[in-house]
Amino acid sequence: MAKSDRFLKACRCEPVDRTPIWLMRQAGRYMKEYMAIREKYDFLTMCKTPELAAEVTLQPVRIVGVDAAILFADILLPLEGMGIDLEFAKNEGPVIHNPVRSSADVEKLKLIDPHEATGYVMEAIKLIKLELDGEVPLIGFSGAPFTLASYMVEGGGSKNYINVKRLMYSEPGVWHALMEKISDVVVAYLDAQIESGAQAVQVFDSWVGCLAPDDYREYVLPHQKRVMEGLAGRGVPVINFANNASTLLEMVAESGGDVIGVDWRIDLDVAWERIGFDKGIQGNLDPIALFAPPEVIRDKAGAILKKAAGRAGHIFNLGHGIHKETPVEHAKYLVEVVHELSAG
Amino acid sequence: MAKSDRFLKACRCEPVDRTPIWLMRQAGRYMKEYMAIREKYDFLTMCKTPELAAEVTLQPVRIVGVDAAILFADILLPLEGMGIDLEFAKNEGPVIHNPVRSSADVEKLKLIDPHEATGYVMEAIKLIKLELDGEVPLIGFSGAPFTLASYMVEGGGSKNYINVKRLMYSEPGVWHALMEKISDVVVAYLDAQIESGAQAVQVFDSWVGCLAPDDYREYVLPHQKRVMEGLAGRGVPVINFANNASTLLEMVAESGGDVIGVDWRIDLDVAWERIGFDKGIQGNLDPIALFAPPEVIRDKAGAILKKAAGRAGHIFNLGHGIHKETPVEHAKYLVEVVHELSAG
Repeated sequence: MAKSDRFLKACRCEPVDRTPIWLMRQAGRYMKEYMAIREKYDFLTMCKTPELAAEVTLQPVRIVGVDAAILFADILLPLEGMGIDLEFAKNEGPVIHNPVRSSADVEKLKLIDPHEATGYVMEAIKLIKLELDGEVPLIGFSGAPFTLASYMVEGGGSKNYINVKRLMYSEPGVWHALMEKISDVVVAYLDAQIESGAQAVQVFDSWVGCLAPDDYREYVLPHQKRVMEGLAGRGVPVINFANNASTLLEMVAESGGDVIGVDWRIDLDVAWERIGFDKGIQGNLDPIALFAPPEVIRDKAGAILKKAAGRAGHIFNLGHGIHKETPVEHAKYLVEVVHELSAG
Repeated sequence: MAKSDRFLKACRCEPVDRTPIWLMRQAGRYMKEYMAIREKYDFLTMCKTPELAAEVTLQPVRIVGVDAAILFADILLPLEGMGIDLEFAKNEGPVIHNPVRSSADVEKLKLIDPHEATGYVMEAIKLIKLELDGEVPLIGFSGAPFTLASYMVEGGGSKNYINVKRLMYSEPGVWHALMEKISDVVVAYLDAQIESGAQAVQVFDSWVGCLAPDDYREYVLPHQKRVMEGLAGRGVPVINFANNASTLLEMVAESGGDVIGVDWRIDLDVAWERIGFDKGIQGNLDPIALFAPPEVIRDKAGAILKKAAGRAGHIFNLGHGIHKETPVEHAKYLVEVVHELSAG
């Protein structure tokens, strides 16, 4: 089997020669080759310059040996065209200068044509596909509606999500209108990525783990479903990843997706049983385990593969993005050891 | 039934007239009466002055109407006597100037006599008991070994727990030696609180939710068990609370405790079934739900009581500490509504 086939076959729960592996945030600061570029350009410039985005997207394929590339981009990019005033403040993460908190704020938000509003993303995808030349598949991605909404309402990152939850609880009509608009944008944005050449897409619900199950069911599930239904039948696998959401897994699986991503807080076998074996599963090594000595990394990778029990449909990944201080040789070793231990 | 009986009876899974309720971090900044004192004294001075600690401990009993008082203190206090150089930096949380990272560091740590090292805590307990005069019971508390260890190794709060996990994975012998020392201190510290008059104790494992289940089993469970076994048979109920630990619940329950605390990320009925109905359960309203309008708070409190299904052994609480911006009248309303909806 060609290396290029592993990831997409696993997404369809078909047998593979070795368990495919890629790492969330694999194009990142733990690589000196990435830092060499990052020192010359700011983050948004890297996202918006197709040649730079393509270069850092390819780095982990060449250097770490992963089985899939994932587009280098930020989940907030499609919000700019919607009318969100976005800034990446130095060392502070994203800041939104016009947070969305009222009915009037939601009405003002525009639906985007992603080919126009985020044309640079589509150009990057085309360039990456050309340079990859079939070596490994390319994954496109978007933030999920809740995570994008939480940035928009909070005006940036958040610890307690007070503004988001207050809006949900106090003005459910405004909340649902916001989530509907965002959901439409997410579907259009990922559709455009697929048209441009993305061979799979992942939807990241990074912050949804702050919700109680009843709140997920009422305020998120219908919208997440709409996104997943909007992407079904496009001919590419859809990975649905909700972070810190072990107690929401059944609902996340119910919302849709061919593959469900899980973080490291749950045993992979327990998670897969709850998701259902008709779907694939992606995960789930603790990213901080890459700070352990190689023999511990080997044991932990082996334990996860054992929980997958050789069942078709497992894509190995970290349970969250790789940390910027991770030793790059440990990331390489993880890829080797997953391939070695899952062979034949 | 006297109001004073509700909490302790519920801890023993005995029937009660109304579901008892208290709020984690109930002596806190959301109350103007607390802030009036906090503006005059720094945090450590408040902890170390029995009269001040007693005064703020009593405030939520008088103002919010909760069914139990909990000692005002910080979980890091017993570490000072162990040789930890602790500072509460302005607006930055605790800073430890001599983090524990090596075998030599662990060896240097002293076991404490809590009556000496934290005599002010024991004085505060005696004073509170006198002033409460049986109105409601007093809960003592301690941090759990993992949470205390994580502060000691990281040197303060942490986002990714890299130093803690690196130590666990790289030098398991040093890790276990550290956890053993801390466990001994926790038992002695809580024992002293019980001798001084605490009528129940809670062990807070605030940060353990960062661990994969296999890591909890190997690096934490034996020590947590040792603490729980050390406290059993003291004649007071022990509440075992692990935050963001829904996937660890069976192991947390296995470690011991009469009542298991759960955060808001899991349905109370699902959690109780996994814990076992022979134990009590404490929780589990999302603290941020107190920012919702009263009718939503009422609905959410009602939904949790419905999941408890009138079964003996439920203590109502938030799923985490009350947030400092919470409207105090919403906290009061929650207490009223829990009493009203659970009556007869």
